[in-house]
Amino acid sequence: MRYGKIPNETIRRLPIYLRGLAMLAGQGLKSVSSGKLADFVNVPPFQIRKDFSYFGDFGTRGVGYDIANLSRQIKKILNLESGHKAALVGVGNLGSAVLAYPGFKIYGFEIEAAFDNNPAVIGRKVGSVLVEDISKINTLTKRGVMLAIVAVPEQAAQQVADKLVAAGVKGILNFSPKRIAVPKKVKVITIDIATDLARLPYYIPSS
Amino acid sequence: MRYGKIPNETIRRLPIYLRGLAMLAGQGLKSVSSGKLADFVNVPPFQIRKDFSYFGDFGTRGVGYDIANLSRQIKKILNLESGHKAALVGVGNLGSAVLAYPGFKIYGFEIEAAFDNNPAVIGRKVGSVLVEDISKINTLTKRGVMLAIVAVPEQAAQQVADKLVAAGVKGILNFSPKRIAVPKKVKVITIDIATDLARLPYYIPSS
Repeated sequence: MRYGKIPNETIRRLPIYLRGLAMLAGQGLKSVSSGKLADFVNVPPFQIRKDFSYFGDFGTRGVGYDIANLSRQIKKILNLESGHKAALVGVGNLGSAVLAYPGFKIYGFEIEAAFDNNPAVIGRKVGSVLVEDISKINTLTKRGVMLAIVAVPEQAAQQVADKLVAAGVKGILNFSPKRIAVPKKVKVITIDIATDLARLPYYIPSS
Repeated sequence: MRYGKIPNETIRRLPIYLRGLAMLAGQGLKSVSSGKLADFVNVPPFQIRKDFSYFGDFGTRGVGYDIANLSRQIKKILNLESGHKAALVGVGNLGSAVLAYPGFKIYGFEIEAAFDNNPAVIGRKVGSVLVEDISKINTLTKRGVMLAIVAVPEQAAQQVADKLVAAGVKGILNFSPKRIAVPKKVKVITIDIATDLARLPYYIPSS
C-alpha cells in the first residue's frame, strides 16, 4: 500500500513506535495516550501526531490509541503484515550477534539463511541456522528471501552486495562503514554504530 | 558550545555528514557542492541546508563547502574536537565486533576499557584492550571515561546501566532492545538493529 510521499524520517520512526507499542502491550495495556507513547519512545508528541497524520487519524481524542489497532496499521504501512525472511552474510562476531538477536520477532522477521566464505564456519549451525557456502547466495529468491543483512569486513562489502543484487535480493541492511553501490531498484540501509556514538558528546556538558 | 534549540534529528544527521566529508576527503577532494554531498550521504539538499542553517552559513554560493572547514565546524558543534574515551561493557560476540569496529576513529573515539563478568573472558586482550572484571567499572571517571557502550544480554542491561551511572558515566550507547532507565542528567542512545531492518520492506514493492 502506498500513501503518497512520506518523509523517510517518518518511516524511520514507525518501527520505533511499533516496538514501543509491543512493549506497552507486554505490560498488559490495551490503549495508550499520545503523551505516554511519546514519553515511552522518546519522540515529542507533536512529531508522533504529525507522523501519523500522513496516514489518517489513528487516535480517539481523550481515549488515546488502541494499541492492537495502531500496531496493525503501522505493520500495514511498513509492509510487515505477512512476515519476511532475511539472510545473513558474514558469520563473524557481528553476524553471530545478529543471529542471536532477540529483537527481530516483533516485526515478523525470520533469519532463514546464513552465508560465509570461511571453511571453518561453513556447515556449522548457529542457533537454528546452518551456515552455507557463500556461493549458495544465488538460491535466495527461490527460497523466498528478498532481504539480507551484510556483516562482512569492509573490504568485502561491495562484492557481497553485488552477489546479493545478482541473486535478486531487494533490500540490504549494511553494517559495514563503507558505502556500497547498488542499482536504484535495491534499497540499502546502512547501520554505522559510530554515527550513533558520535551524537552522545553533544548532549554531555563539558567538564 | 550551545546553539539554542537544535532538533535532535539535525544532531542525528551531523555525524553522517561528517563521515561523508571524511570519505570525500579520502578521495582527495578539498571542496564539495551541496548537491554532491547530498547525493553522497543520501539526504535531500534542502535538508542539509536547513540543518546547517541552525549554525550559520557554512557554504559559499557557487563554490560549495570547504571540506576541512565544514568538518571542523561539525566537530565543534558535536563536541568532538578534543576526542573522547569510551568503555565497552559486555565482550560477547557483539562486544567483540564493537572492539574490532574501524569506524570510530574519524570521530575521535577510542575504546579505552572493556568489562565483562565472565571469568573466561576477564584478563584476555581483545585487540589492544584488556578485558577487566565488571567490578572495576567504578574506576572509569578517574580514567577520563564518560561514555560507555552496553553490549550485554537484555536481562543484564539495566543493572549495568545502574553501575555506569553510579560510576559517573554521562552517556550510554545501548545495544540491548530493552529500554533502560537512567537519571535525566545521563543521555542514552539505543541502537536497535531490528528497527532498521523493519524499514526495509516499506521500500520494496510487493511481488
